[in-house]
Amino acid sequence: MEKYMGEFLGTLVLIVFGTGVGASVNLNKALAKGFAPSWFTVVFAWGLAVTLGIYTAGFYDTGGHLNPAVTLAFAVGGMFPWNQVAGYILAQFLGAFCGAAIISLVFYPHFKETKTEEGNSVGIFATGPAIKNPVYNLLSEIAATFFFIFVLLMMTHGEITPGLTPLLVGFLIMAVGLSLGSTTGFALNPARDLGPRLAYALLPIPNKGSVNWDYAWIPILGPIIGAIIAVLAVNAM
Amino acid sequence: MEKYMGEFLGTLVLIVFGTGVGASVNLNKALAKGFAPSWFTVVFAWGLAVTLGIYTAGFYDTGGHLNPAVTLAFAVGGMFPWNQVAGYILAQFLGAFCGAAIISLVFYPHFKETKTEEGNSVGIFATGPAIKNPVYNLLSEIAATFFFIFVLLMMTHGEITPGLTPLLVGFLIMAVGLSLGSTTGFALNPARDLGPRLAYALLPIPNKGSVNWDYAWIPILGPIIGAIIAVLAVNAM
Amino acid sequence: MEKYMGEFLGTLVLIVFGTGVGASVNLNKALAKGFAPSWFTVVFAWGLAVTLGIYTAGFYDTGGHLNPAVTLAFAVGGMFPWNQVAGYILAQFLGAFCGAAIISLVFYPHFKETKTEEGNSVGIFATGPAIKNPVYNLLSEIAATFFFIFVLLMMTHGEITPGLTPLLVGFLIMAVGLSLGSTTGFALNPARDLGPRLAYALLPIPNKGSVNWDYAWIPILGPIIGAIIAVLAVNAM
Amino acid sequence: MEKYMGEFLGTLVLIVFGTGVGASVNLNKALAKGFAPSWFTVVFAWGLAVTLGIYTAGFYDTGGHLNPAVTLAFAVGGMFPWNQVAGYILAQFLGAFCGAAIISLVFYPHFKETKTEEGNSVGIFATGPAIKNPVYNLLSEIAATFFFIFVLLMMTHGEITPGLTPLLVGFLIMAVGLSLGSTTGFALNPARDLGPRLAYALLPIPNKGSVNWDYAWIPILGPIIGAIIAVLAVNAM
Repeated sequence: MEKYMGEFLGTLVLIVFGTGVGASVNLNKALAKGFAPSWFTVVFAWGLAVTLGIYTAGFYDTGGHLNPAVTLAFAVGGMFPWNQVAGYILAQFLGAFCGAAIISLVFYPHFKETKTEEGNSVGIFATGPAIKNPVYNLLSEIAATFFFIFVLLMMTHGEITPGLTPLLVGFLIMAVGLSLGSTTGFALNPARDLGPRLAYALLPIPNKGSVNWDYAWIPILGPIIGAIIAVLAVNAM
Repeated sequence: MEKYMGEFLGTLVLIVFGTGVGASVNLNKALAKGFAPSWFTVVFAWGLAVTLGIYTAGFYDTGGHLNPAVTLAFAVGGMFPWNQVAGYILAQFLGAFCGAAIISLVFYPHFKETKTEEGNSVGIFATGPAIKNPVYNLLSEIAATFFFIFVLLMMTHGEITPGLTPLLVGFLIMAVGLSLGSTTGFALNPARDLGPRLAYALLPIPNKGSVNWDYAWIPILGPIIGAIIAVLAVNAM
Repeated sequence: MEKYMGEFLGTLVLIVFGTGVGASVNLNKALAKGFAPSWFTVVFAWGLAVTLGIYTAGFYDTGGHLNPAVTLAFAVGGMFPWNQVAGYILAQFLGAFCGAAIISLVFYPHFKETKTEEGNSVGIFATGPAIKNPVYNLLSEIAATFFFIFVLLMMTHGEITPGLTPLLVGFLIMAVGLSLGSTTGFALNPARDLGPRLAYALLPIPNKGSVNWDYAWIPILGPIIGAIIAVLAVNAM
Repeated sequence: MEKYMGEFLGTLVLIVFGTGVGASVNLNKALAKGFAPSWFTVVFAWGLAVTLGIYTAGFYDTGGHLNPAVTLAFAVGGMFPWNQVAGYILAQFLGAFCGAAIISLVFYPHFKETKTEEGNSVGIFATGPAIKNPVYNLLSEIAATFFFIFVLLMMTHGEITPGLTPLLVGFLIMAVGLSLGSTTGFALNPARDLGPRLAYALLPIPNKGSVNWDYAWIPILGPIIGAIIAVLAVNAM
């Protein structure tokens, strides 16, 4: 039970810090938007968001998955007990939903000031393709998640001084985002995408635009496939 | 007594490095202003400012609060003796005032060159709302401080290699600033806001604008509430 | 054999993360290109790419060369067995080729959307001179690689806490890129340049431009000379 | 003798990486100049330059001064033997001169392509005031160096995991640059300013502008005063 709490809180922290930067660079009158933000800013913030989510989950020694694709893939690879999978995944989706809800509340006055076409879009909360093409979009999410999980497992195989690993994972996320994130926005994580997308759909956010439900399956399926391939590849080594 | 000195010096260092970047990106002819600074620059500098303030206070083993909201919340949570609270808080406000005074002196020629409407405003020293709305502004400071202190406590619960923690806290501040800082400028700390605001009000700074006293209570009250909730939440775990 | 696999995988990871940022900032509709990327973004990503390649190779304890110039120079300096040199170098070139192939696949729809003169050039994959001048271009690659390897050897001579070294090497690459990379794009590594250049030449990438084969010898020869001088210099100390 | 070599090499590395970024963002056709560099880029590079210089000097256990103001102040404070002061300082100036000479050679074609008024100025190599005012410029260098050395001494008083300290010093330099560097360019170090200034004056660099000799005393005297005050202050604690 404590572990589920840890995954809930860690994912909530991840999504508060992650979707917070989305709101900050997209919504009118937000200080970041008015002051030359950049793709680097967004990717750097998401990297730190993952770092801080892992530290948070570390309080309960959950392993810091924060990601249903990781939980599933670890179970498939025999590195995580199947009977905790459903609890972990539920906690992750709940955490992601609540994190996005907090951001939609804190930035409420900014949502009110921003029309859809000015940046008040589902892109604050969830990912979307730069060029719509389901085959390549799925491939992109598979590849990005594969390299994320593959390097993560290779990296944490060696000895790392206490407390450094979550920071290194944040830098890994930054590298993934800067290199493989430009095609679909690097979801890497079904909860990170679906949770906030649901929040955008269900919550009374002003000036909402389309939820892009037709794209929503890609950041669910892609990360799961990518993570499983990565786990099986490393296990085979 | 030594601990009060440590909190004074640590907060002074924090505010020199923090308000220094405010002066650098706002005042005419400052090298940063002339060369494409960004929101990222400001947030990154504030993060490092906190890191370096904590290292400084570490000399006297004060715990590196540098923040009356932290001191109060730790006392409320039974993690800090009540009889040192007043001394700590006084030292923090004094340090913040002196840090801002140093910046106003070092940048004096630049203040002279910058009219109020060009950037010579209280915003160099203190925070202000992007959209004026007391309820949401207070909420924003509560939320930002809550996540700062909550993640800080979760993170430092685990083992961290010697000397790394203050750097991690700096990255935490950067994440808070990038994600939750765009609404009110992430004060997170009554001393960080009121000390420099007082300095701006009292010192003979050229071309001064309004001190925005009517906003000043929010970055005092919000951080105290947010920090107390965070401490109580973690204690309940 | 395992070590060759390690060098292959490490170099592949390096090139995926490195050329990925090249694609991201150059190709039309890529999220990074649309959102104010900068030289800093590119250099930062390449630094992290090296960091993550080294962690990956660390799984097999290869020493994390990922670079034929390093392998050759270490052999010349008596720090690496000659009978593994050919295998290492082959693995590195293969890894670099495959890494670039993956990027060309993932970004395929973006290559299709970008004409040569809009940024679809070999510069995504390989380096090129800012001012064409073979003598100075060669000198620049020699100097950049010399300082990279020289500082690397000086730095790793001392004790470093477990797991930190690859991150420090990434920061070293960032420093080299920001300071010595503006003349020729800091190849520093024959495999990093020739492997992806070959991939660009051989693979069916849409809207391809020139491969600049006449420049290709410089990022091969320069790094080898620079690395050998650095190793001999440090050995002589 | 070995220690002098270490200070020579460390300062050379510092100045290669530091003035290299100056050349990169100022000279025509340099890749950085063409691709949105920023004040952050420059400050970040100088921070890493200091980090890497210290690692280099660490090979010879010199203490990594790389700075006559540090050497002098440590001698004044009884933390360094007076009979090595002259040798250290000579080595530092020589290293700084040679580092700048290397950059002027590597970027020679770019110097040829850049007129004085386009960015080919002594500012690539040495610092200059944003607003000329000897009293405030001196004060600014005193303050910036004071906070650099003061926080450095406070920080390194505590335990730090092996190999992390030089990176932390780099972050300290970044904080100083972002906050106190906008007035005079944060020399902090007589060798860092005078060595490259001399190189610019004496070497046959094309399209040279004024050497600004009348300003040169400030980045010598200011850092010495600031460093001595910082050492005496910490010693008194």
